[in-house]
Amino acid sequence: MEAMVNNIRVEKAATSKIHDVDFDNLAFGSTYTDHMLVSDFVNGEWKEPKIVPYGPISLEPSAKIFHYGQSIFEGMKAYKDVEGGVWLFRPMENCKRLNKSAERLTIPELPESYFMDGLMALLQLEKDWVPKNPGSSLYIRPFMFASGSGFHASPADEYKFIIALAPSGAYFSGKVKVLIEEKYSRAANGGVGYAKAGGNYAGQFYPTQLAAEKGYQQVIWTDDNNHEFIEEAGAMNVFVRINDTLITAPTSDRILDGITRKSILDIAEDENIATEVRKISVHEVVEAAKNGTLKEMFGAGTAAVVSPIAGFGYKGMDYDLPVLAESYAEKLKKRITDIQYNRAEDKFGWRHQVV
Amino acid sequence: MEAMVNNIRVEKAATSKIHDVDFDNLAFGSTYTDHMLVSDFVNGEWKEPKIVPYGPISLEPSAKIFHYGQSIFEGMKAYKDVEGGVWLFRPMENCKRLNKSAERLTIPELPESYFMDGLMALLQLEKDWVPKNPGSSLYIRPFMFASGSGFHASPADEYKFIIALAPSGAYFSGKVKVLIEEKYSRAANGGVGYAKAGGNYAGQFYPTQLAAEKGYQQVIWTDDNNHEFIEEAGAMNVFVRINDTLITAPTSDRILDGITRKSILDIAEDENIATEVRKISVHEVVEAAKNGTLKEMFGAGTAAVVSPIAGFGYKGMDYDLPVLAESYAEKLKKRITDIQYNRAEDKFGWRHQVV
Repeated sequence: MEAMVNNIRVEKAATSKIHDVDFDNLAFGSTYTDHMLVSDFVNGEWKEPKIVPYGPISLEPSAKIFHYGQSIFEGMKAYKDVEGGVWLFRPMENCKRLNKSAERLTIPELPESYFMDGLMALLQLEKDWVPKNPGSSLYIRPFMFASGSGFHASPADEYKFIIALAPSGAYFSGKVKVLIEEKYSRAANGGVGYAKAGGNYAGQFYPTQLAAEKGYQQVIWTDDNNHEFIEEAGAMNVFVRINDTLITAPTSDRILDGITRKSILDIAEDENIATEVRKISVHEVVEAAKNGTLKEMFGAGTAAVVSPIAGFGYKGMDYDLPVLAESYAEKLKKRITDIQYNRAEDKFGWRHQVV
Repeated sequence: MEAMVNNIRVEKAATSKIHDVDFDNLAFGSTYTDHMLVSDFVNGEWKEPKIVPYGPISLEPSAKIFHYGQSIFEGMKAYKDVEGGVWLFRPMENCKRLNKSAERLTIPELPESYFMDGLMALLQLEKDWVPKNPGSSLYIRPFMFASGSGFHASPADEYKFIIALAPSGAYFSGKVKVLIEEKYSRAANGGVGYAKAGGNYAGQFYPTQLAAEKGYQQVIWTDDNNHEFIEEAGAMNVFVRINDTLITAPTSDRILDGITRKSILDIAEDENIATEVRKISVHEVVEAAKNGTLKEMFGAGTAAVVSPIAGFGYKGMDYDLPVLAESYAEKLKKRITDIQYNRAEDKFGWRHQVV
């Protein structure tokens, strides 16, 4: 059965799985909707995307994704308001960043209209999958990978772009304890750290596992030269509040240009919170923890939104952060989610209506 | 049709593709044999490997290989001697390195017997695919990747291990011109550079493409701190000959512990060639090129064996290397390939007979 939604061809699934889903008990990113958007890069061009039933992908064992890690992705969410309206948050930022990652990984650029029109059509078709429960959303995963063949270590000649959807609950529950990393690193100067490349994430798992064995849920990544400056928190950007100033590291070729990160900076400014975008040394954070001026730390990213940090470990010592009556983390999270869920005015023009 | 070869279950392909192959004109790694070895990690253990017809793999779109780059591989070759005997070169080194990479990428360790017994059975079945032509070999690609599902950025719960085979000609033809990298990097301190992780290769494609646009076939990777020391040549280890001393960088968490690299060091010692394993600064190489003491540079790895470098570019200048009547590269390549192809005594005990 083939139809069109918003000029995108749709091959509809024979049946829907939606009634099998317990929307009151959603994990993160482990239940998938009925359809996905697919476009193939073959013969030197991206083919028009189409919507097909969500289902397995068949690849040759020689497909370069298995061998050379040519893969990138994005993370987005669709939010449902109380009236049933469905909203995206700054979607063009994801579209542009996907192509920025693509360039670094030598993957051909995707036409922006394929991304945006395809995404809108897919969401219109799957709108009933956007959960209504507080804190829930429809997690959106656009990704691209090398489907072309060959054991020669060079870019593939074929690629696949897919958008899959997963109704999801919260990524983390509660505050996390983090370990400031002294040995392992996430990214090299002149490397691919700023891109959402698959390989950046696999490299984090082992150090994160070692930290978990010591009782920390996340790693605070530091520069690979001397582990002197804090850079990211797990797969999120990191914010530090010293006295009443909110500080985050500048983006670089090692640090992801997070959409939540830059939105939080704008909201903080709007709230008259003093912000600084500058290098933050581990020494400064430890000293501030010792003298009581370190008020808060939190991670920021699409999946977890704002993830407050309860305390950190460094060189065998643990430092607890105070519990505040009025935290920046809470205030900023409320402001950003109120915009995302259409509960407040959107003075920045960040919301994008789907239906 | 199911049979057993060396205690490994074999599901035989209905027909063979071997008669369609032009063994006189083999490219590198783009023709595949009739069978592959497969083992799955499910429910907390690696299942006994089996041999099945070479063919497509079906994966969920949420398989973590597509999203988080959890993939590692090895590169090996099987060599045919004039009598039709088939040989491997130090295969246990690959088996051990695969598991070393697996640990860093949080992939469960594969039992060594699954690797070795599976590989031997597969090669015995496919022995007619090992090419006889000079410089040709059967390229062997063991690889492992995350097949388990989920958009949560954490290690997968299921993995796949495959060995695929590709009768192959030479990787490079002739000498290459290289560019000493001043901006991009291959690996971070405390990162995954020492592992054969897929993501390490994807990250090299873009800088290599930029170098190719300037007329260089490969990049000489330098440290990511100050681009002061030379570390690898493309996807190979790098050797430099200054006067009559052969120098290579020490292995580290950034540099692959290459099997060809260490074999060449042993052979050089046996040939009474002075060797040094130490950091090599770009400054030293450039000065040696200027004053005529830089005699040779070459890459070393399984795919290309020894890849002589004709000259290098650095900071906009080109430096040509001399053409020598008796090069170390040629001498060492002859010694190592004579062992690999069973044309000479194997005093190191590196050969491993298949049939």
